[in-house]
Amino acid sequence: MLTHSPIQLVLIALGSCLLLYYIFLSPSNQGCTDDDFGGSKRKGLAYYDMDHPIENTTVNTRMDHVLILTPFKEAAQHIERYFDNVNKLTYPHDHISLGFLVSDSTDGTIEKLQQRAQQAMQTSPWERFHRINIFQKDFAYELASNEDRHAFSVQVKRRQIMAKSRNTLLSAALTQEIDWVLWLDGDVVEYPPSLLEELMGLDKDIVVPNCYWHSYNEEGGYDRNNWQETDQSWEFQRTLKSTDVLVEGYNELITHRKLLLDMRFENDETDLFYTVPLDAVGGTCTLVKAKVHRDGAIFPSFPFQHQVETEGMAKMAKALGYEIFGLPNYLVYHYI
Amino acid sequence: MLTHSPIQLVLIALGSCLLLYYIFLSPSNQGCTDDDFGGSKRKGLAYYDMDHPIENTTVNTRMDHVLILTPFKEAAQHIERYFDNVNKLTYPHDHISLGFLVSDSTDGTIEKLQQRAQQAMQTSPWERFHRINIFQKDFAYELASNEDRHAFSVQVKRRQIMAKSRNTLLSAALTQEIDWVLWLDGDVVEYPPSLLEELMGLDKDIVVPNCYWHSYNEEGGYDRNNWQETDQSWEFQRTLKSTDVLVEGYNELITHRKLLLDMRFENDETDLFYTVPLDAVGGTCTLVKAKVHRDGAIFPSFPFQHQVETEGMAKMAKALGYEIFGLPNYLVYHYI
Repeated sequence: MLTHSPIQLVLIALGSCLLLYYIFLSPSNQGCTDDDFGGSKRKGLAYYDMDHPIENTTVNTRMDHVLILTPFKEAAQHIERYFDNVNKLTYPHDHISLGFLVSDSTDGTIEKLQQRAQQAMQTSPWERFHRINIFQKDFAYELASNEDRHAFSVQVKRRQIMAKSRNTLLSAALTQEIDWVLWLDGDVVEYPPSLLEELMGLDKDIVVPNCYWHSYNEEGGYDRNNWQETDQSWEFQRTLKSTDVLVEGYNELITHRKLLLDMRFENDETDLFYTVPLDAVGGTCTLVKAKVHRDGAIFPSFPFQHQVETEGMAKMAKALGYEIFGLPNYLVYHYI
Repeated sequence: MLTHSPIQLVLIALGSCLLLYYIFLSPSNQGCTDDDFGGSKRKGLAYYDMDHPIENTTVNTRMDHVLILTPFKEAAQHIERYFDNVNKLTYPHDHISLGFLVSDSTDGTIEKLQQRAQQAMQTSPWERFHRINIFQKDFAYELASNEDRHAFSVQVKRRQIMAKSRNTLLSAALTQEIDWVLWLDGDVVEYPPSLLEELMGLDKDIVVPNCYWHSYNEEGGYDRNNWQETDQSWEFQRTLKSTDVLVEGYNELITHRKLLLDMRFENDETDLFYTVPLDAVGGTCTLVKAKVHRDGAIFPSFPFQHQVETEGMAKMAKALGYEIFGLPNYLVYHYI
């Protein structure tokens, strides 16, 4: 039988404490290593060579990082499906980050989103996304209720608010490790799991699939904002004031653009990766090289070459010298 | 004298371990708390209410966070002075972050900056900045050497590159906790230590001091990009093509703007906080509410209402409905 004085007991306890401290709490374990790429980082101080991003110093290859950005508004019903779909993406999830902006929602969107995001981050490491950021910001106060009756003017106003909301999301979520931004609407309900690698593989500054809707026996075009200018559309624009804003899909305003929706091959011919040059895009499912946004292509809420929001962003990207392409036969499907 | 069996000793050690675990390592302490404001954060998953930013849940007041952004190019000689000045800022340093973009420098700018930034972060906690991010990205390849002879066209080209560089810096550094962005040129050599609280106190969307230069016995105006439109300048612009770009300070191009430089009171009258409305700003020392940038006011490298870069950003801010003011008698000084 061993005997110990109280002092010895205190020393034993103290020894255990010290041992634990060195195992779990010594400085080398203490610092939060921010998960930046290609950067050296001390607490609060970071250096990034944006011309030479690297993942770590022992490996020479670096896999591109994709940020999927989705604005949500009263969208609780779509969140299950949204996550079912992104979870199935075959591109390595540790190279995908998700960013959400929830605005003006009273249907539990934020709670549902937090819950599903938490689930998504608690799966096995190889299914887990690199990062999920959820931002909440309301914009509704800007819509006066007496404007609700005029569909066309409300459409422009709605697009202007969407523009600010997309810019706010982009500004908050676009960090230095991102190579590509996929704008994906919350109510896009079907797309191939190979979407990311297939679109990125085309290596275009901006590229859009063709966004349709379908029921069990019918389908039709959804996103009318992917289009080409035509001789007639340019001519029409010369008659406009610089502050005039155009939107597609209104009988009272014929813009003479050629829609990506109308370029799909007939007779079920499906050359999936056939590309056509475009002059504007919508935001339902749009892949953008991050450098296009970094150079200054944002979503104008003011008229820019007669466009706002996603078409305005496309016009800015073109003004910056970038090119835009559409895939008439590569389909994604929107909620009806 | 107490006696203990080996089992008892093991239990004591185990008890100490458990106690320590619950004190230091239980889940509530385990998460890396990124230094976000007003956000709850698990590893890789974060939620921010941008409408209600708070510092912590026990204090109801929140102090605004300022991001100082500075593009550096071949600027090693200015870095000592730059840090001497920001170190003297009287606004609480833990509510100031610094962001730098170093471009096209072969004079040791990056090394000097890293060294001074490290020093700045190793001082006493109350002098330390919240965060310093240094980004490196080259843009020089875009300037063809055969264009060097034409001063005016080179000026526009230079401003377009500066625009992309500012957008890249803004996109990388503007995180969700920021309330104000101060654009501060690396060669602004003198300003009041109270600059931040004084400019923020005016609560303007965008506000600029008057940027001069001085020697031991002379002084003169430096930043000509802070100006008001006039009836004549609007009239002149109606004669331009939409792609024409204006810059101030060239004899071959009289724009008829009224410069902030020319609005300073005479006879040493110094009403420091006298404000005048402006239509454009330069970037030597310019305070911008972060929401102005988040809404989409970036630095266009393409012509926007005949302007690029900082004046273009100002035009975008006005298109977004924001107001700009200048302080004719509040002086900051640029390197000659």
